[in-house]
Formats: sequence, structure tokens, C-alpha cells
Amino acid sequence: MTSEFNLIQQYFQSHPQTREDVVLGIGDDCALLSSPSDQQLAMSTDTLVEGVHYYPNADPHAIGHKALAVSLSDLAAMGATPAWVMLSLTLDQAKEEWIKAFCEGFFALLDQHHMTLIGGNMSSGPSSITTQVTGFLPKGSGMRRSGARPGDHIYVTGYLGDAALALAGLKGQVNLSEQLSIFQKALDYPVPRVKAGLNLRDVAHAAIDISDGLIADLGHILEQSGVGATIKLEHIPLSQAAQHLIASHQLTFEEVIQYALTGGDDYELCFTAPPSIVESLEIDCLCTRIGVIETAESFRLLLKGEAFQGGSRRGFEHFVRSY
Amino acid sequence: MTSEFNLIQQYFQSHPQTREDVVLGIGDDCALLSSPSDQQLAMSTDTLVEGVHYYPNADPHAIGHKALAVSLSDLAAMGATPAWVMLSLTLDQAKEEWIKAFCEGFFALLDQHHMTLIGGNMSSGPSSITTQVTGFLPKGSGMRRSGARPGDHIYVTGYLGDAALALAGLKGQVNLSEQLSIFQKALDYPVPRVKAGLNLRDVAHAAIDISDGLIADLGHILEQSGVGATIKLEHIPLSQAAQHLIASHQLTFEEVIQYALTGGDDYELCFTAPPSIVESLEIDCLCTRIGVIETAESFRLLLKGEAFQGGSRRGFEHFVRSY
Repeated sequence: MTSEFNLIQQYFQSHPQTREDVVLGIGDDCALLSSPSDQQLAMSTDTLVEGVHYYPNADPHAIGHKALAVSLSDLAAMGATPAWVMLSLTLDQAKEEWIKAFCEGFFALLDQHHMTLIGGNMSSGPSSITTQVTGFLPKGSGMRRSGARPGDHIYVTGYLGDAALALAGLKGQVNLSEQLSIFQKALDYPVPRVKAGLNLRDVAHAAIDISDGLIADLGHILEQSGVGATIKLEHIPLSQAAQHLIASHQLTFEEVIQYALTGGDDYELCFTAPPSIVESLEIDCLCTRIGVIETAESFRLLLKGEAFQGGSRRGFEHFVRSY
Repeated sequence: MTSEFNLIQQYFQSHPQTREDVVLGIGDDCALLSSPSDQQLAMSTDTLVEGVHYYPNADPHAIGHKALAVSLSDLAAMGATPAWVMLSLTLDQAKEEWIKAFCEGFFALLDQHHMTLIGGNMSSGPSSITTQVTGFLPKGSGMRRSGARPGDHIYVTGYLGDAALALAGLKGQVNLSEQLSIFQKALDYPVPRVKAGLNLRDVAHAAIDISDGLIADLGHILEQSGVGATIKLEHIPLSQAAQHLIASHQLTFEEVIQYALTGGDDYELCFTAPPSIVESLEIDCLCTRIGVIETAESFRLLLKGEAFQGGSRRGFEHFVRSY
């Protein structure tokens, strides 16, 4: 195992790094960093466990991408500029081919965001990956979950539900046939909305990234802000592929919308902002208004003006009941 | 599982925190921190895997202590003042009793160092614990592995070998009888040498914490500094309990010294410094001179002036051969 781990270290340590704020990088007891004096730090960590968050036979390039993407998504939701990442990699075996592909996926996303891998840890054991990211943002800024105000419009970036539909397809719960690969891209290669987060930082009142499903994550905003919300389901953004499932009668609208409402792994942003202000912003991705923040601590899902009764998916029902 | 994880969050979130540099703590997408403008940051991360780094039935209080101690030890080796920690906890099951004891061990050490838990992650899966720590140190300071100079004296803190002897005792490789509990304390409750690290910061030329055994870890200093060393084995500090094993003929000196040289998990510091300067320092723990840094890139182990032939433990032989 030792030689394989040397190999890993070689792969990780050899990647060129250019950030001037990294005083001492990989290879000592600690990394040494200089942080900008006019900024605050934003820190977050996430773990992906084999068999829980990804399949044992999943593409290692995608795992490398996703391990970093899920943490970057947290920086995006706070409106922070990514800077440094630490990587703890526990592997039950370390095959060179796997590591090489993992690194390619990981570093492609890292380079895209001008980040540096500053350290980490390698262990032998049941496979899991923990990334810890640090970003910067001006003092006093940062989009918190607690800032939503009555009258705010509620927005989401991108499309919802594709990742959950992919997972259902892989599990054989729905038949996506030749479209599986389209949905699987959303599951395997989520795009952390870093640029959108930066553009929203001074505008949005509250934000969160959608990792556990829109209803659960919006629920955190509502709870921490002490407000309620009304969501218009016909406004929930569905991808062309998802719309095609409905048009071709493979799934009903009600079925698809529940993946969009309760499916995790989308890693889009959900945020609230004063009316009309978002339309004038330059956001680098689709940004759709889906509802409004209410004074009363209630949560309403409307479909063409009528209360939506929901369906059979447990997480969804559980949430609605508990509100 | 969800309710258990809520329980965990409650345990972790409820711990009082008093640091003024934590602008936003646990409970949002990111923690927000303000870092001191005249300091650099030191960051490190470590993972403990059940079945690899601790036994499944190990005392959760000790696991909580050790999970933080191993990362603090890295800050100590750099001479940094601990500040923040993130905790990623993956558990195959979450029993309240286990979590309660884990938290007690974790927070006792955290409070001792005036740190704050700023965030983390909870997952279901094969049990493992990743801690990521951040500390501060003045710009331009920090004890690197690469700073050892010929003529430096080599020191270690505390006693070496007790943790490895405990592990050998638990595995039934040596019979420690009623003394097992004494050795096990070294294995279960390593003391991160944070204060010693702070006192040494402006004096030591190089430092490392001994997690993989003295020879392996001193080897990193020698390699990164491009120097050699001579170690006098009769000076290696052995605990009273270890000395008793020799005096009572349970183990030979040669056997015990090999645990001290190659046993991991001691988490003492090994450092190099100009001659005589350490004697005048106020260090809060035992600090023993064990050898000297040499110009030539050789590594010599002497016992009463004679080359020590080593023994049968593989890691040791491997290292000596590879030098």
C-alpha cells in the first residue's frame, strides 16, 4: 500500500500551484497561508462516502469533480471567492488508474476556480473523501440563511430534479432509457454556482445550496429567517430532458415535480431577494423566480393557484407534515 | 438515522463558544471567520478510520480526544496557536451514549486550547473521523521540516514508544499484564505539545510531530533539510513503565528501544536547535537531547558508541536500508 500512497502524494504534490497567498503548501505538518486583511474567511467541509454518496464503480473522474464541487457549492451559497482546499482521501485500495482519473476530475475544477490544494491526508480504509474549502469575502458580507424577509422573491439557479431522476434511473425506479446519460451528467458533474454567488452577494437577502432538495433546503432558510413561503410549481425550472419525460408520457408532471422538489444533489442555489432586483443582474446561468417569502410561518405549494397535494415520496411528505 | 443525526448536531451546536473571531459558526453553508491581520494561518487535517486507527470497541471519549489531538499535534509542530476546528464524522450507527462520550472527550481538549468548532459534516457510512484545524502564527515564523542545520542538537519531548507498546499489548504481541493501562493512556490520550511548540517557535530550526515513529519522522526532517544525523540510543527517553519492562526482564532494552524508534502514535515533537539554547527555555514538558545533525546525508544509530544493528521490526529495517 505504501508505494501506492507515495504515488498518490506524487500525483497531488506535482500539480502546479500559483497562488501567492500559499506561503507553504503540501509536505509539512501544516500549510501556511496569508489571508487578505480586508476580507473574512468562509470555510466549509463535505464528505462523500462510497456506497452512500457514490457507487463503488462510479467514474473516478466524476468523483474527483464532485468531491470538490460539493464544497465549492457551499462557498457559492455564501458568496465567497474560493481559495484553498484540503483533501482527506481514504481508499480501500489505491489503483494508479483510479487515482489518475480522480486527480484529473479534481484538478480540472480546482484550476477553473484558481484554487490551490494546500494539504490533506491519505488513509487506508473504507473509501471516503472529505474536502475542506476556504474562500474570501468582504467583511460584513455573506448570504446567510437567516436573512429572508417577507415580500422577497424566491429564485433558483439552473434546473431542479435532474440529479434525483438520474439516481432513480440508475436504481431502476424509473426507465430513462437512452436519456439516462443526460440526467447522469447533472448527478456526476454538478456545477457549483460560484460566479452566481459572487454576483448575488450584495443583492440577495438569504441563500442556500440545494444539496438535500429544494423543500428541505428552502426550509432551512424559512426556519432560520422565521418566515414562510409560497411556491408556484409551474415556475419550477425543469430541464428539456425532464420536460421530455412528461411530454412523452414516461412520467407525469406530478411525478417529475416531486423529484425537483425533494431530490438532492442538484447543487443549485436557492436565494431570496427584493422584487425585480435580480432581473438587472448579470448572472452567468439560468435564474428563475419560483415564489415569494410570506410573513406567516406557513409553507404553501401552489399548482395553477390550487394547493398541491404532493404525492408519495416520503421525504416530501415528512417535511410538509412537520411544518 | 435522521433523528440520531439531529441529536449529534444538537450536541455539537450546543457547546458554548466564546471566540470573537468566529463571525458565524455552525449552522449555515459556511462558517465566517475574521483572521488577525498580523498573523499567518496554519492549517492541517487528519483522519482516524475505525479498524485502522482505532478499535471498533474503543472508548468513544478517547476517540473524541484523539481525533482532535492528532490535528493539534500538527499545529504544535509548526508552532501555531490553535483557533478553529471543523469535524467530519461518518458513523455506521449513531448511539446517543457513544456520541455523548465522544463529545466529552472532544470538547474537553477543545476547551483546553480555547478553540471553537466552526462546522462540520455528518454522514452515514463506515465510521471515520476527519478533523481540520486552523491556527495562527506571526508572519515569517513557523518550524518547517526543511530548516535543520549541521551541528543542531536533536531533541524530543516526552517519552517515546509507550503508544506502540500499548498497541503491541492489545494485539497480544507482548504481555504487559497489569501495566497495560499505563501504556494505553499514551495510546488513547496523546498530549499535543502545543505549548512546547509555541515556546520553540523562535528557537528551533526544524520540527515535526512523531506520528509514524521517530526514525520515519526524523527522516522527513533529514530528507527535506538535506542533512544527516547521529542518534545516541541510550539517550532516547523511556517512561518509567517502559524502563520497568526492561528491569523486570519482560523485554530487552533492544526490544523496547525499537518500539521507541519505530512505533507510531506518540505525538511528541522532534526538533532541532542550536546547541545549548533549549536548556534556557521554559518548556512545559520533558525535553531530551537525543543526537546531533550531521553534514553528511547519513543516519547513524549509536548505542554506547557502537553502531546499533537494529532488530527484526520491518519498518525500521526498511528505513535504515533505504537511507
